Amino acid sequence: MGKTAHLWPYLGWAELFSLRTWRASLAECLVTFLFVFVSCGAVVATGMVEDAAMDASRLLTIAMAHGLGIAVLAASTSAISGGHINPAVSFAFALTGTISIVRFVLYTLFQLLGAVLGAALLYAAVPPAVRGNLGAHTLGPDVSAAQGFLIEVMLTFVLMFVIFANAADPKGNGTLAPLLIGLTVVVDICIGAPLTGASMNPARSFGPALVMNTAWKHHIIYWFGPLLGAGFAAVWYRHMFFNPKQKEG
Amino acid sequence: MGKTAHLWPYLGWAELFSLRTWRASLAECLVTFLFVFVSCGAVVATGMVEDAAMDASRLLTIAMAHGLGIAVLAASTSAISGGHINPAVSFAFALTGTISIVRFVLYTLFQLLGAVLGAALLYAAVPPAVRGNLGAHTLGPDVSAAQGFLIEVMLTFVLMFVIFANAADPKGNGTLAPLLIGLTVVVDICIGAPLTGASMNPARSFGPALVMNTAWKHHIIYWFGPLLGAGFAAVWYRHMFFNPKQKEG
Amino acid sequence: MGKTAHLWPYLGWAELFSLRTWRASLAECLVTFLFVFVSCGAVVATGMVEDAAMDASRLLTIAMAHGLGIAVLAASTSAISGGHINPAVSFAFALTGTISIVRFVLYTLFQLLGAVLGAALLYAAVPPAVRGNLGAHTLGPDVSAAQGFLIEVMLTFVLMFVIFANAADPKGNGTLAPLLIGLTVVVDICIGAPLTGASMNPARSFGPALVMNTAWKHHIIYWFGPLLGAGFAAVWYRHMFFNPKQKEG
Amino acid sequence: MGKTAHLWPYLGWAELFSLRTWRASLAECLVTFLFVFVSCGAVVATGMVEDAAMDASRLLTIAMAHGLGIAVLAASTSAISGGHINPAVSFAFALTGTISIVRFVLYTLFQLLGAVLGAALLYAAVPPAVRGNLGAHTLGPDVSAAQGFLIEVMLTFVLMFVIFANAADPKGNGTLAPLLIGLTVVVDICIGAPLTGASMNPARSFGPALVMNTAWKHHIIYWFGPLLGAGFAAVWYRHMFFNPKQKEG
Ligand SMILES: [Ca+2]
Ligand SMILES: [Ca+2]
Ligand SMILES: [Ca+2]
Ligand SMILES: [Ca+2]
Repeated sequence: MGKTAHLWPYLGWAELFSLRTWRASLAECLVTFLFVFVSCGAVVATGMVEDAAMDASRLLTIAMAHGLGIAVLAASTSAISGGHINPAVSFAFALTGTISIVRFVLYTLFQLLGAVLGAALLYAAVPPAVRGNLGAHTLGPDVSAAQGFLIEVMLTFVLMFVIFANAADPKGNGTLAPLLIGLTVVVDICIGAPLTGASMNPARSFGPALVMNTAWKHHIIYWFGPLLGAGFAAVWYRHMFFNPKQKEG
Repeated sequence: MGKTAHLWPYLGWAELFSLRTWRASLAECLVTFLFVFVSCGAVVATGMVEDAAMDASRLLTIAMAHGLGIAVLAASTSAISGGHINPAVSFAFALTGTISIVRFVLYTLFQLLGAVLGAALLYAAVPPAVRGNLGAHTLGPDVSAAQGFLIEVMLTFVLMFVIFANAADPKGNGTLAPLLIGLTVVVDICIGAPLTGASMNPARSFGPALVMNTAWKHHIIYWFGPLLGAGFAAVWYRHMFFNPKQKEG
Repeated sequence: MGKTAHLWPYLGWAELFSLRTWRASLAECLVTFLFVFVSCGAVVATGMVEDAAMDASRLLTIAMAHGLGIAVLAASTSAISGGHINPAVSFAFALTGTISIVRFVLYTLFQLLGAVLGAALLYAAVPPAVRGNLGAHTLGPDVSAAQGFLIEVMLTFVLMFVIFANAADPKGNGTLAPLLIGLTVVVDICIGAPLTGASMNPARSFGPALVMNTAWKHHIIYWFGPLLGAGFAAVWYRHMFFNPKQKEG
Repeated sequence: MGKTAHLWPYLGWAELFSLRTWRASLAECLVTFLFVFVSCGAVVATGMVEDAAMDASRLLTIAMAHGLGIAVLAASTSAISGGHINPAVSFAFALTGTISIVRFVLYTLFQLLGAVLGAALLYAAVPPAVRGNLGAHTLGPDVSAAQGFLIEVMLTFVLMFVIFANAADPKGNGTLAPLLIGLTVVVDICIGAPLTGASMNPARSFGPALVMNTAWKHHIIYWFGPLLGAGFAAVWYRHMFFNPKQKEG
C-alpha cells in the first residue's frame, strides 16, 4: 500500500503501457485467487467438523482464516501491487489519488477474475457433500437490508481507516501494517459474521456467488456497502488526519 | 502514546486554542466510537450463535475482538492523539504529566460521546431480538462489589503497566507497542470476563449502559476501578522504572 | 531464509567440508524434531480433552500449535540454517538456487531424522491410550486422492509464496517474516485439516507414519503435493515478482 | 533478556550493593505476581463458564492467557530486569554467564514471592465456589511421573531455545522476541496442558500450590523438569549456535 502525495484521482492512461502495471494487476489476481480459496475453504472445512450451523469456535476459526490470510497475502504483495486484494480498497485508494483510475479498473477486474477462479478451484477440490454455498455471503436471520448495508459500511470503514492510518500515512506503523490490517479483518468478522458474513470485499462475495449461482438476493449490499465504507474512511482520514503538521493552525 | 519528560500534571489552557488538540480529541471520539461498536458488537454477535450464556470459545472470541480492536485502533491514532480510547488511560497520562489536565478533560468527554454513539449505532444495526444488554458490564454470579472492584483495579493495572513500559518509556518496544497493548486486553478479558466483564475502560462500560439504560447497579466500579488501577500503574512505573539510568545509585 | 542472487541450483560439493553446513543441518534436525514433537503433540493432547473426533475449537488449537510452532522455530534458526523445517521448502530454495543441491539433500535427511525422533519421543512421552495415530496424515471422508493432492499443492503454494515474498525477496517484510510464515500455516490448516490434515511438509507426515507404521495408503501425496506446490510457488515468484526493478520494461 | 559475552557463571557479590539489581529483582517480583494472577485467573475464569473439566476451547483460552501474558510482561521488563518471570529462565541465564549467581538467587526468591502473592490475591478476588485448585499443576490421567518429567523437560527446552535464539543471541529477531517467546508458551501449553499442565516455570507451579496447600505429590517435577530443560537448551545453544562466525572452521 504505497505512500502517495497526490491530491485527487487521475486517469493514468500511460499506466496501460507499463509492464509494472500489468505485473501488479496479475499479483492482485493471484492473491485474490489465493485469498478466496483459503477463506471460503475455511468456511467449508469448519462446516465439515461442526454439526451446528455456526458457533463461536467456528466463527473465530473463520475470522482467523480470513484475517490472517489477508495479513500474509497483503504483506507478500505490498511492494508489488500495494496488496489490496479487494476492489473496495482499490476504490478508496483511487478516490484519494493513491492509484490512478486506470489502475483501479485493472485491479478490480483482475481481483474479480481471481476470486472466481479461487472459488472454482475450491469447488473442484472439496467433496460435493460439503460444498454448501462455498462461503457465499447472505444476511443473517432477522437482519434487514438496511441493517446489513449499515454493518458492511461500518466494518469496511474500520478496515480502511486502519489501512490508511498504517499503510498510507507515513506516520503509521509500517512494519506492523499488514498484521494490523489482517487483525482488523479478524475483529470485523467476529462482529459481522452472523449478521452479514462480514464481507467488506465485493470480490470475496462475488466469487462463490457466481460459481454456485447463489446468494444474489442482497448481493448488491456487498458492493455498495464496502465501497461506501472504504471510500468514506479514506476521504475522511485524508482530510482530517493526514500530514497534520502541514494543516496545523 | 507520546513520550514525555514532564514530572507532574499541568493545566494546559493554551491547548484549548490549538487545532491539534481538537483534532486529537475528535480522533479519540472516532476510535472510541469504533471500539464500542465492534467490541459490543462481538458480544452481541457471539450471543447469536451460542445457545449457552457463555463458554470458553465465546469468551475467547470476545477477548480477541476487544484486544485486537484496541491494537489496531490505538496503532491508527497513536501519532494523532496517542490512541488512548479510554478515560482511565488518559487519566493515568495526565497524572504523570504526559498530557495536560485540559486535554484529559477533552479526551474523556469525546471518548464518552464516542462510546454512546457507538452503542447507539449498534442498537440500530442489529435485530431487536439479539440486542441483549449490548455488552453492558455487570458482576458475575457470587462476585462481591469489593471483589469486582479489586478485579478491575488489577486488570487495568496490568494494562497500564504494559502501556507505560512499551509506549511511554523510551526503553520500550515501540514497534510492537500497539500489538502488545491489545494482547494485554486479550489476556485481561480471559480472566475477567466471567467476573466483571473485564471493562478496564469507563467509556466502554458507559456507552451501552446509557443506551440500554441498564447495568447501573455497580456502574461506579467501572469508573473507580480502572481509574485507580491505571493511575497506580502509571505513577509506580514512573517512579520505579522510568529512565533508570538517571536514578542509578 | 537467506537472501540469494543465484539463478539456478548448483551442486555445492565444497559445502560438505564446511562446519557451517553441518551445523546448519544439525539445526534443521533439531527444529524439525521439536516441531514434530509439539505439532503431533497438540493433535494428541487436544484429542485427550475432546470427545468428538474433531470440531472447530480443536481444529483451531491444532492450527495454532502448528503455525506458531513454525513461527518461533523458524525465527530461532533463520540465521543458522534458514529455518526451513520442511523438505519442500528446502526443495523450493534449491530449485531457485538459494541453496545448493548438496545442502538440500543434507537438510532433507536431517529433517526426516528429526521428524522420526520427534514422533518417537512423543510416543514415549504420552500414555498409550491417547496416542491415536500420533497425528499422522490421512485423507478426510469422501476426499479423493486427486482432491487431496490438489489441496496439498495449493496449501503449500500459499506457504511458499509467503516465504519467498517475505524471507527471500529483499523487498519483503523481514522483521515480521517468521510470524507471517507461521500465520500462513495457521490459515492453511484451518482449510486443510479436515480434508488432508494440511501437511505441506513431507517430514511432518513421515515421522508419525513411520513410528506408528500407519497412514501409508496416500502417503505419497504428502511428498509430491508439497514438493510441487512449493517448487511452483518459488519458481513463479522468482520469475514474475523478484527484483522487478531490473525487469521493468 | 540482555545480550552477554560471558562464558561461565560468576558469583557477582558486588551486585548486592547496586540499586539496579534490587530494582530489577523488584520488577521480577511484580511481573511474576501479575503473571500468576492472570494465568491462574484464566484457569479459574474459564472453569466458571465451561461445564466440562477441559475441552479444546478452554485449553486454547488458557494457552493464550499464559502465552500472551508472558509476551506482554516480558516486553515490559526486558530493559529493566531481562523479563525472566521464571526461575528456570534465570537459572539458564546464570548457567551461561548472562547473569551472576547472586542475581539468579535474588531473582528466584523475588519470583517465588511474587507468585505466592499473585495466587493469594487471586484467592481473595474470586468467589470461593469457583477457586478450584487456583490453577495448580498436576499430572493428567495415566501420565507417569517419568512421562511428566520428560514433557516438562521438552516443553521448557523449546521455550529456552526460542528465548536464547531470539533474545540472547545478537543474530536473533530482537524486535519480535517477546512476542515469539510468548507464542512459544502458547504452543507448549497446547501440547502439555492435559499431560502436566505445561508449567515450564517453578514459580508458576509453586504459587497456587502453596496458597491452596495442594498438588504437592509431583511438585518436584515442576522444579527439576523446567530447570533441566532450560539449562540444557541454553548450554546447547550457547556451544552449538552462538556466534557461529567465530567458530567457523
Ligand atoms: Ca463447537
Ligand atoms: Ca461453544
Ligand atoms: Ca469442543
Ligand atoms: Ca466448550
